[in-house]
Amino acid sequence: MKRILTLGCTLLLSLSFCFSSSAATGKLDPLPSWHAGNSKQAIINFVNEVTTPESPQYVNKNDRIATFDNDGTLWAEQPIYAQLMFAIERIYSLAPQNPSWQTKHRTAKLLKGDIEGALSHDENAVNDIVMAANTGMSDEAYTKIVKQWISKAKHPVSQKLFTNMVYQPMLELIDYLQQNGFKTYIVTGGGSQFIRAWSQDVYNIPPEQVIGSTMKRTYVMKNEKKVIMREGEMDFYNNKSNKVIAINTHIGRRPIAAFGNSDGDMQMLNYVSDGEGARLGMIIHHTDEKREWAYDRKSPIGHLSKALDKAKENNWQVVDMKSDWKVIYPTVSH
Amino acid sequence: MKRILTLGCTLLLSLSFCFSSSAATGKLDPLPSWHAGNSKQAIINFVNEVTTPESPQYVNKNDRIATFDNDGTLWAEQPIYAQLMFAIERIYSLAPQNPSWQTKHRTAKLLKGDIEGALSHDENAVNDIVMAANTGMSDEAYTKIVKQWISKAKHPVSQKLFTNMVYQPMLELIDYLQQNGFKTYIVTGGGSQFIRAWSQDVYNIPPEQVIGSTMKRTYVMKNEKKVIMREGEMDFYNNKSNKVIAINTHIGRRPIAAFGNSDGDMQMLNYVSDGEGARLGMIIHHTDEKREWAYDRKSPIGHLSKALDKAKENNWQVVDMKSDWKVIYPTVSH
Repeated sequence: MKRILTLGCTLLLSLSFCFSSSAATGKLDPLPSWHAGNSKQAIINFVNEVTTPESPQYVNKNDRIATFDNDGTLWAEQPIYAQLMFAIERIYSLAPQNPSWQTKHRTAKLLKGDIEGALSHDENAVNDIVMAANTGMSDEAYTKIVKQWISKAKHPVSQKLFTNMVYQPMLELIDYLQQNGFKTYIVTGGGSQFIRAWSQDVYNIPPEQVIGSTMKRTYVMKNEKKVIMREGEMDFYNNKSNKVIAINTHIGRRPIAAFGNSDGDMQMLNYVSDGEGARLGMIIHHTDEKREWAYDRKSPIGHLSKALDKAKENNWQVVDMKSDWKVIYPTVSH
Repeated sequence: MKRILTLGCTLLLSLSFCFSSSAATGKLDPLPSWHAGNSKQAIINFVNEVTTPESPQYVNKNDRIATFDNDGTLWAEQPIYAQLMFAIERIYSLAPQNPSWQTKHRTAKLLKGDIEGALSHDENAVNDIVMAANTGMSDEAYTKIVKQWISKAKHPVSQKLFTNMVYQPMLELIDYLQQNGFKTYIVTGGGSQFIRAWSQDVYNIPPEQVIGSTMKRTYVMKNEKKVIMREGEMDFYNNKSNKVIAINTHIGRRPIAAFGNSDGDMQMLNYVSDGEGARLGMIIHHTDEKREWAYDRKSPIGHLSKALDKAKENNWQVVDMKSDWKVIYPTVSH
């Protein structure tokens, strides 16, 4: 898999039109897929403020840390999380070897084709299903399974590869921040190892900069070799306040920019914007039912209500996907 | 505080004698404090093998990850861990505000001056004492306290600053690996935030590349501001097999080099040397009772027995501090 951002260059003869070179030269628009407007201006102002040595808000390179939620912030999460789709497909294909799934409440519903029923009435449903399909193997085996799946898996509505359902404006934003000395992290409720299997190729974010939910693991002998086994129990669910704790565990200090799209990102946004100096907190608001999906307060996936109410008082920039983004997905040639 | 490694250059007029420029030019010895011998040769051979594009053992820059234990591997741990010294000093100074410490088993012994008694009969003693003195404040307050302490704290025997009790040959090794594209991590039983407060200045390793033990934390309101509170309960004790799990949690893949000095590092060494391709596993053996300390199988601090027995079959290089290192500590001018 090739980094999608660079695909913007493949068909162009002149480098001067290539996204990734634009920030380096400083001459071209570093965010070509963003319409001129408050959101784009907020990003550019913030980056200028923290990177201009003479600026009173200047931040040392070492402290330029930005955190991004993943589902709904960097790629599409409707009508179903990619990782949940992965889990459901695995449950179908592994059902013959796991007869107990026929009787267990949620997996039984799934296997009868009742996806909605399997997921309803409990906010832990998604985690339960993901757990059943994502554990019981070594960490290295799991990474191989995910890599294989993601190389072919297609979005149920668009029929594009999931890795082409990432948001082009956000790829440009990650690149722009990196070009300006930022260390970019993903801080996600999704599984760390699920995303790490492809984060470098798709987002140019290395595995160690992906902070997600984790299963309990043990370091044990298996077939005469010691392996890290993924056990069937949640270790850490990285959502809401836990995102702040996870940032503390992994990074050890307060980021200066954070990007999210749901109430599960509110505490992270709070933590970041509470710090002293220039801060950028940003909410991706899904307003484009034609090119993507339109959802917020009533959606169980990517539920956005409190964070939207609190945006103004916290000075969080709300990105309106419909009016702020020229394109949603990268143009890819297959 | 200035990075100690660079002090080697401060008194020299010509850059050609400066350690940190040597690896870059490729002309000078990158490990001047290491005597010629098996240990030094093993390091240089390994680095050449994984960085030479034509080598069958070549490793992509992104996958060049090295993990270092801290106490006894990067700095002195005898006669007492620095973090334990910090904790004991805090318990003495905070005792008036914490009357319950007068009656609690271990802190009571400490406050009566019986340090040995407070630490004996239980391998959790050190953690208990550290916990009493390292929790109950916000994360940012704690970092300030540690920074203040480490800027003045002196080793009880040498009376040097603790930050000058780091091993010069290991500073050169970290630098040499970094110059060759390695990402260098500390993987320690010590507290993450204790070491992160000074790791950048002393080791040139940023906070996010320090993986240590953690306390439970909560994100709560305090004085009308939300803070990360350090609670009085262990969250994760990063030793033995847990070092492997922590590497998986934070880095997400297998390092290709690991450095330790005690049985607590054995699983990490195993994990690293079990991988395919060129690997470097190294044990720092404390053999120099004149310039440092000589200890291994009988020492409760830095206990080294099983890992020493297993070194040969696992192809771990055992560094003999006495014969392999020209100097132990950096030359510093105060």
